Amino acid sequence: MAGSSFGTIFKLTTFGESHGVAIGGIIDGVPANEPIDVDAIQAELARRKPGQSSIVTQRKESDTVEILSGIFEGKTTGTPIGFIIRNEDHKSTDYDPIKEVFRPSHADFTYTAKYGNRDYRGGGRSSARETACRVVAGAIAKQILAAIGVDIVAYVDQVGTIKVGNEIDYNVIDENPVRCPNMKVAAEMEALIKEVRKDGDTIGGSIRCEINHVPVGLGEPVFDKLHAELGKAMLSINAVKGVEFGSGFDCVVMRGSEHNDLFNEDGSTQTNHSGGIQGGISNGMPITLRVAFKPVATIIKTQTTLTTEGKLVEMDGKGRHDPCVVPRAVPIVEAMVAITILDFYLRDKGTII
Amino acid sequence: MAGSSFGTIFKLTTFGESHGVAIGGIIDGVPANEPIDVDAIQAELARRKPGQSSIVTQRKESDTVEILSGIFEGKTTGTPIGFIIRNEDHKSTDYDPIKEVFRPSHADFTYTAKYGNRDYRGGGRSSARETACRVVAGAIAKQILAAIGVDIVAYVDQVGTIKVGNEIDYNVIDENPVRCPNMKVAAEMEALIKEVRKDGDTIGGSIRCEINHVPVGLGEPVFDKLHAELGKAMLSINAVKGVEFGSGFDCVVMRGSEHNDLFNEDGSTQTNHSGGIQGGISNGMPITLRVAFKPVATIIKTQTTLTTEGKLVEMDGKGRHDPCVVPRAVPIVEAMVAITILDFYLRDKGTII
Amino acid sequence: MAGSSFGTIFKLTTFGESHGVAIGGIIDGVPANEPIDVDAIQAELARRKPGQSSIVTQRKESDTVEILSGIFEGKTTGTPIGFIIRNEDHKSTDYDPIKEVFRPSHADFTYTAKYGNRDYRGGGRSSARETACRVVAGAIAKQILAAIGVDIVAYVDQVGTIKVGNEIDYNVIDENPVRCPNMKVAAEMEALIKEVRKDGDTIGGSIRCEINHVPVGLGEPVFDKLHAELGKAMLSINAVKGVEFGSGFDCVVMRGSEHNDLFNEDGSTQTNHSGGIQGGISNGMPITLRVAFKPVATIIKTQTTLTTEGKLVEMDGKGRHDPCVVPRAVPIVEAMVAITILDFYLRDKGTII
Amino acid sequence: MAGSSFGTIFKLTTFGESHGVAIGGIIDGVPANEPIDVDAIQAELARRKPGQSSIVTQRKESDTVEILSGIFEGKTTGTPIGFIIRNEDHKSTDYDPIKEVFRPSHADFTYTAKYGNRDYRGGGRSSARETACRVVAGAIAKQILAAIGVDIVAYVDQVGTIKVGNEIDYNVIDENPVRCPNMKVAAEMEALIKEVRKDGDTIGGSIRCEINHVPVGLGEPVFDKLHAELGKAMLSINAVKGVEFGSGFDCVVMRGSEHNDLFNEDGSTQTNHSGGIQGGISNGMPITLRVAFKPVATIIKTQTTLTTEGKLVEMDGKGRHDPCVVPRAVPIVEAMVAITILDFYLRDKGTII
Repeated sequence: MAGSSFGTIFKLTTFGESHGVAIGGIIDGVPANEPIDVDAIQAELARRKPGQSSIVTQRKESDTVEILSGIFEGKTTGTPIGFIIRNEDHKSTDYDPIKEVFRPSHADFTYTAKYGNRDYRGGGRSSARETACRVVAGAIAKQILAAIGVDIVAYVDQVGTIKVGNEIDYNVIDENPVRCPNMKVAAEMEALIKEVRKDGDTIGGSIRCEINHVPVGLGEPVFDKLHAELGKAMLSINAVKGVEFGSGFDCVVMRGSEHNDLFNEDGSTQTNHSGGIQGGISNGMPITLRVAFKPVATIIKTQTTLTTEGKLVEMDGKGRHDPCVVPRAVPIVEAMVAITILDFYLRDKGTII
Repeated sequence: MAGSSFGTIFKLTTFGESHGVAIGGIIDGVPANEPIDVDAIQAELARRKPGQSSIVTQRKESDTVEILSGIFEGKTTGTPIGFIIRNEDHKSTDYDPIKEVFRPSHADFTYTAKYGNRDYRGGGRSSARETACRVVAGAIAKQILAAIGVDIVAYVDQVGTIKVGNEIDYNVIDENPVRCPNMKVAAEMEALIKEVRKDGDTIGGSIRCEINHVPVGLGEPVFDKLHAELGKAMLSINAVKGVEFGSGFDCVVMRGSEHNDLFNEDGSTQTNHSGGIQGGISNGMPITLRVAFKPVATIIKTQTTLTTEGKLVEMDGKGRHDPCVVPRAVPIVEAMVAITILDFYLRDKGTII
Repeated sequence: MAGSSFGTIFKLTTFGESHGVAIGGIIDGVPANEPIDVDAIQAELARRKPGQSSIVTQRKESDTVEILSGIFEGKTTGTPIGFIIRNEDHKSTDYDPIKEVFRPSHADFTYTAKYGNRDYRGGGRSSARETACRVVAGAIAKQILAAIGVDIVAYVDQVGTIKVGNEIDYNVIDENPVRCPNMKVAAEMEALIKEVRKDGDTIGGSIRCEINHVPVGLGEPVFDKLHAELGKAMLSINAVKGVEFGSGFDCVVMRGSEHNDLFNEDGSTQTNHSGGIQGGISNGMPITLRVAFKPVATIIKTQTTLTTEGKLVEMDGKGRHDPCVVPRAVPIVEAMVAITILDFYLRDKGTII
Repeated sequence: MAGSSFGTIFKLTTFGESHGVAIGGIIDGVPANEPIDVDAIQAELARRKPGQSSIVTQRKESDTVEILSGIFEGKTTGTPIGFIIRNEDHKSTDYDPIKEVFRPSHADFTYTAKYGNRDYRGGGRSSARETACRVVAGAIAKQILAAIGVDIVAYVDQVGTIKVGNEIDYNVIDENPVRCPNMKVAAEMEALIKEVRKDGDTIGGSIRCEINHVPVGLGEPVFDKLHAELGKAMLSINAVKGVEFGSGFDCVVMRGSEHNDLFNEDGSTQTNHSGGIQGGISNGMPITLRVAFKPVATIIKTQTTLTTEGKLVEMDGKGRHDPCVVPRAVPIVEAMVAITILDFYLRDKGTII
């Protein structure tokens, strides 16, 4: 109800503010007896963590996860997995300048309006720091999904106007700081991000995700269609403004005779405008989706902003922010996808006795 | 869990197949003592109903709703509202041709794979007929929201490559069969739809929705952000392939200095790239969203399809389908938006004692 | 949230007031491909229906269920089952006398306080009439459970001070109007009920239920223990004041050495004080529970009551009420047990991949 | 779904095994701006903690709670409260003797059957240690409820055959180690518990709880009746075998004319057989309930038990267990009641706009 949980069977609940003692979560409904590699969880966190390259925020956080329950002798027991990540870099003094203003296009204003209080230490609960907990749960979900053959790959396909195009090499995604599957385009994107940062500004981007080998039959009609829940998962990530599946917004200009995916004899389809989902249920083809991220709201340029007293003032930006959010958002997209797919896999088990 | 419910407090659960006895639903969590105009519910159904104009399906359904409980002496009592809509046009013979094939880009294949059976009478549960129940619940939600000042307006903003542009007159939306807020553009869209139908084909389109006077503070961090749940609501509608909020996919090419919505002294903003939502919580500005609908999968043109026995065969299309889904989808979009906003309004009441 | 749903996967949602147009429900999460005998549903309703014998209310209701969806060619399809039962005996004039008073120990006062309105036509949503919908869902659950070997039997074990004792013949439960598994004791109970009715009064009673051949492993720690959810199911039935499992309240005076159920080599236990559940999870032994029902609040004797204007007045009772609720409550107990057990059966399927 | 959560708006989710690193929880849906005294939370934990008197288990646990989020400057912020309690006394060697046996009337057998693995370090997730997390959440709920006038008091009313009777002094409940509201009876109970312990045995008991000044109107028909959810809350506590409200099981022998609670002019009632709840909704009278606890299953006496290999063997009991669970269960009952009442208080806020 208060929105800190995601999933129905495989269910993540998170807590924690960016400048509190710790963040963490509980994963309930973890299937029993699945081997879990805790190092692999930490490795996923490293893909999201600040300071990993020169084009992301330089804040210092080791993002070390401590697993507190639910795993015994290297395997899940079926009981909930509790975990915490201590906050290390939470000098509240960093945030004194923002104590009395509502930053434009941040959640300062809306949180204060909703809750009647101000956690002026930073982004608090609205900070993207919370997504580290999603990455932990996603890393666990990924390992369980891998055992049943599902693999998930996300990458940056656009930064500003630079698009990746059709020459894609999945192997290079983590070989460049942008997480773009084409080294040449990645270099262009990196240059753009650096230029934007030099301007004290930020830039938008988008991430594409492919989910392969999803069993046929996942997804629940009518309201919990597989792409509806995946869409919610994506839109719940900070800075996301849109999501599309398969043909996506391009479908608007298409005709049915062109858009329909004709079958092969084995039930696969010749095209995949459906993006692997028909009627809200997976059809065995790759599930494809694309997510739009707005430019980060924290900029260095001077902006007019509003004080908590209702006055407009000029504010000089400073701080250690991401000039472009997509490089660090790739593991978050993958994590939310993994949580969603595993949850639907478990939900489907009750369909037939 | 099985996906037939939407909402948490104001909660709609639906049942019914396109060719069964009836469809219907239960709305639980309806606030007590709200006046309800049953004729207004029927009027919303008329906006969604088949046969309403020459550019929609000519199937015959009166779509008459029977309210069975929860309203007494013209007001909600606080108990659940049960309702049914009898199916009148369900001659199963219509569907004999499809009994042994999986139609391309329909849900025939995935439903059979998931449930291990085939309701060959028609679209069954995957039919858009189910959305009539959403319109009933939405019409009730709209009336309750109107009493607190919220208004919701949706319209067709694109059919194929024809876009509505900036000259918008909300008053004409229901004055033309396309539900486009510009009579001239509407005529072009209508012509395109007729041309497409003549070709035995179908065409995609998109709908834009604006929600005005939403109280500040609706939406729940972290996973149940207002736009995340609205996005799920949209993606759960048949044929939707994408959804975007505020700046949407255009944000990808924007810089932060351009995208940030600067405040006015009263807390409103000069621009509205955020689409009325910051950090997942409404900020009092209009909430804006756009939804992409694919071309209807049922076409008259001959297509190759797959039999339930696994053979490829040629199938001649026939039947009474919509050449373009968006004119009838406008009230569905409004309905799902209304259900979602009212639910968050009620959820917010528990935030502060 | 508003309390009209029960279950998590196999989930019943109900609507309807005693004096409205109809009552009904939706069962979501019904496993696909299970044969359902609709006559058997109607037969269960007959066990609950008014007028079935001389010791129950003589109201006239045929309680005919109409199944609207979810069953095709005699089997469940996996889609929700919608159903309605029309109210036939709802002359509101019957209830004119109660329009302006709150009857003692009824829900008139609390509903009015909660909802700020009065559905003076009768018990409204608080009427036990609502339980007919539970019997429909329970009859479906029972049929599915029977296919996996689970059987459920409930019976009246006490009326007033008359107890059934140890001589029990399950075969005679439906051979007497009390539903007591001992014909001699049943006759005594029947005589007591008639005497009480002659006095214009009512009497309490209790029902015992046994659930046999439940698979080992059903129930979810920590909060959703099998008996916790069964207990909630029982306490949600009108007039129930208490519930106990296995040794129940007798455990208070027992010692551990006496109460512990020692194992046999096959994992069964020599005694069954645990009532078939250990740590909230079924252990394969019969699950046993007992439910206390208060005397019906509607009596013929003159009582002081409170007007809606806040005055105390004398009210002469009249009407067609049950002198003792337990004979008709037996199928309701079985129904709620069946719904609960089937739900946990489906929930357990996600425990191990 | 997997059962580690309780509540709908004010919602506690817990994790942790008795012999893992830590236990803990997340409370979501905490109303904002409520002052919280962290020392009062620790004081409630002290009432539940091992080693507090000579008649409880002598295990050593400081049960120190660390609050990680959701409270800022002494008040709730509205964001989830995360907390952990480190396990200090988890030498797994303690449990070597039980590694290969299923202890009678423990959850060893059922957990192994359900999950297909054995956490042989101790009770694991089935251990009553988990209830410490409930006490934390309950202590927070109590503070918030106190601000709206609700008070909750529980006490031991029976140990073995010794009952407290009618002479009750609430002030002495925490003045004696049994938590009985009569010092003389408490001394008798204490003597009985010591005698039982000397025998290497354990004894059952019961707890009564009164909830005063609950606002009229809490509770949701039909399935989520206030006492149904309270009953589930009680039955989810380790060792509970039964629960009753108001007249409870005594209602079975009563007549309606005797059981009905006649009104006073102010809407209160002359008697309170209803136990403060009518039709599942609070009526403003004190809510009264009673809970039966079985004798602890761990005894010192030698018992026959079953090995994991399926052999019957004699097992000598040892270890530091409670001879009677009720003294330490009093704060747990209060905690679960507080969580439930606060949750219904928040749920009720959506009933009327």
